[in-house]
Amino acid sequence: MKTQVGIIGAGPAGLVLANWLRKYGIESVIIELRSREYVEGRVRAGLVEQNTKDILKELGLDARMKKEGIVHDGVYLSFDEERVHIPFGELTGGRTISIYGQQEIVKDLTDAWLQEGGQLHFETKATKIVDFDTKNPKIHFEKDGEEEIMECDFVAACDGFHGIGRKTLPHKSFQSYDITYPFSWLGILAHVAPSTDELIYAYHENGFALHSLRSETVSRLYIQVDNDESVDNWSDDRIWSELSKRLATPGFELEEGPIFEKGITPMRSHMIDSLQSGRLFLSGDAAHIVPPTGGKGMNLAIADVKHLVDAFVDFYTNNSEVKMESYTRIALQRIWRAQDFSNFMTKLFHKQDAHGSFTYRLQKAKFDYLKVSRAYKTTIAENYVGLPFESFEM
Amino acid sequence: MKTQVGIIGAGPAGLVLANWLRKYGIESVIIELRSREYVEGRVRAGLVEQNTKDILKELGLDARMKKEGIVHDGVYLSFDEERVHIPFGELTGGRTISIYGQQEIVKDLTDAWLQEGGQLHFETKATKIVDFDTKNPKIHFEKDGEEEIMECDFVAACDGFHGIGRKTLPHKSFQSYDITYPFSWLGILAHVAPSTDELIYAYHENGFALHSLRSETVSRLYIQVDNDESVDNWSDDRIWSELSKRLATPGFELEEGPIFEKGITPMRSHMIDSLQSGRLFLSGDAAHIVPPTGGKGMNLAIADVKHLVDAFVDFYTNNSEVKMESYTRIALQRIWRAQDFSNFMTKLFHKQDAHGSFTYRLQKAKFDYLKVSRAYKTTIAENYVGLPFESFEM
Repeated sequence: MKTQVGIIGAGPAGLVLANWLRKYGIESVIIELRSREYVEGRVRAGLVEQNTKDILKELGLDARMKKEGIVHDGVYLSFDEERVHIPFGELTGGRTISIYGQQEIVKDLTDAWLQEGGQLHFETKATKIVDFDTKNPKIHFEKDGEEEIMECDFVAACDGFHGIGRKTLPHKSFQSYDITYPFSWLGILAHVAPSTDELIYAYHENGFALHSLRSETVSRLYIQVDNDESVDNWSDDRIWSELSKRLATPGFELEEGPIFEKGITPMRSHMIDSLQSGRLFLSGDAAHIVPPTGGKGMNLAIADVKHLVDAFVDFYTNNSEVKMESYTRIALQRIWRAQDFSNFMTKLFHKQDAHGSFTYRLQKAKFDYLKVSRAYKTTIAENYVGLPFESFEM
Repeated sequence: MKTQVGIIGAGPAGLVLANWLRKYGIESVIIELRSREYVEGRVRAGLVEQNTKDILKELGLDARMKKEGIVHDGVYLSFDEERVHIPFGELTGGRTISIYGQQEIVKDLTDAWLQEGGQLHFETKATKIVDFDTKNPKIHFEKDGEEEIMECDFVAACDGFHGIGRKTLPHKSFQSYDITYPFSWLGILAHVAPSTDELIYAYHENGFALHSLRSETVSRLYIQVDNDESVDNWSDDRIWSELSKRLATPGFELEEGPIFEKGITPMRSHMIDSLQSGRLFLSGDAAHIVPPTGGKGMNLAIADVKHLVDAFVDFYTNNSEVKMESYTRIALQRIWRAQDFSNFMTKLFHKQDAHGSFTYRLQKAKFDYLKVSRAYKTTIAENYVGLPFESFEM
């Protein structure tokens, strides 16, 4: 098998890359470890920032998102039962987010890729990436019990944190960072209409809570729990009761409904400071994990891909490796910005130390400042909807 | 001795309070532990924020500051030898800071107070504050070896961290916070023209540095050192060499000159969450210490006094205790804002962890964000020049 760009992973990063390269006449083949059914059913985040919406529009792949997604023009921030609204559009010149499940984007992108004859091999395991220090890198993979080789000009590893891309990157070529936050999220999905028109982030003396949503009939909610907590300790009643307390503000009522998913997610940050070695490139979770507080995961992955597309187009169109060589540097600007923003949101709304402690007082001082400063509100709005690509050095 | 408001301490807080109350026909007497010579010679900060300038103007006491002070319309922030400018006026609707020594303000206020016959007893030691839970509190004091008593309606303790006011406040009535940062400042005064037209804050892999100034011929500079560091280890040559490294940016040259003062200052935060007990009120350093990074110490003290004046005027003019009862709550809003801002500036520009660590990367990400976001720059500008009083609930 031969192609120009061999892509490992049919998540948002790999699929955007393939669809986007096709617009420039650059060939690619995707291999994906899991089945189509599994990938399209894998529920992940659903916060689509403005840049991501713009990219999907540019690719002509935003029709269903525009129809079924829910545009949010702001977010509610709550602290000790007091609430502030951050109006995105007003503060950022009209930029917003949309709530549209990552798996729906994956479906749209998969359909588009396959409909026009794109190659996508499900249930195909990449076993080795070799010769990426030459002009002829190869991906070894197993499909239906057979071992095969994909020869390509470049390998794009969009295969997540546990993928082969990250493991293959020579360890000498990068520094890595691993941060585990001292708390986790207990998350639920419930069959109940959201009790709010926009997301609510809340600090409460019992800990953080987040009211998010999946659709008009499905709500997604989270509460901060200890890292050693077990879902077994959390009956549905206890969860709803705790959510009601933590999300409480005057006039707000939380609707309850049947919980159909319950799970605990650790909060962590992972970074490597090189996304490239020779002709092997990493994008998305393969290269970085951010805590989910800012909703940045998928958006960062697709932003990486934008820079990767720029690099490949520069190579195939202009025969230049300039953008290829600056890929790591350019992408890392946005990734560190997202790490810092996610860290900021995490620290602002989670219980880090005793209620009433100096740390708590500084968190409260930040919240009180939000109430009076348009500039401070704007910093949250512009990070939340995603800073424009033009903001960064390209 | 009898008066309406008994004031302990002839620093900026006590002197502004006395001069301001006089405008409303409210009598006060100041007692001060030290000599006039000592107080007027005691070199402290010299960063006067817009609110403080406005107050001195309102009191008609800003003539010499306007003539001899140096208006700064911005500040330079430097990180890894790269520099960003924060233009205060442009970002805050014309608000600025002035560089004018605290001891000069003290001289101006002392002159004004005494010239119109105000009572100010130097070298007078307050030994006891009693009966502040009644309508007739008393300050016991020693002057020229004699013990005397000042009877008053209210006691204003503007007598600093080591004063009797803080010690007298009943411990059950407040929670206190004490934070020691894991680094100190080695500060120098030198006979040399400042090498910069505005202050420079710098992060460098060797640690923080600050180029400040006292006048057109005297520079004030600081470098971050360990808490157990001794000035004996720092020759003049070593200091200048370190400053040159840490403040370096392309095109910048640091002028050296004779150092005539050298000292190490710990960095700490101290807070109590009540500034009042009965008829005893605390203002300034008696109630709070902020790390010097944001230049907030004297400005906060004078802001406290503004609220205290409001409270006394409300009492004597309207026979109302409403503003008196809200003094702590109102003043603490600004004080916690200043603690948070000082903490933010401290953490952004000091070496907290190894150069290249995750913590460093987030600091760098914040600095890179400053380069591209007008909103983020504005948050620094508006805190630095001081948020208007109207920003806070009054």
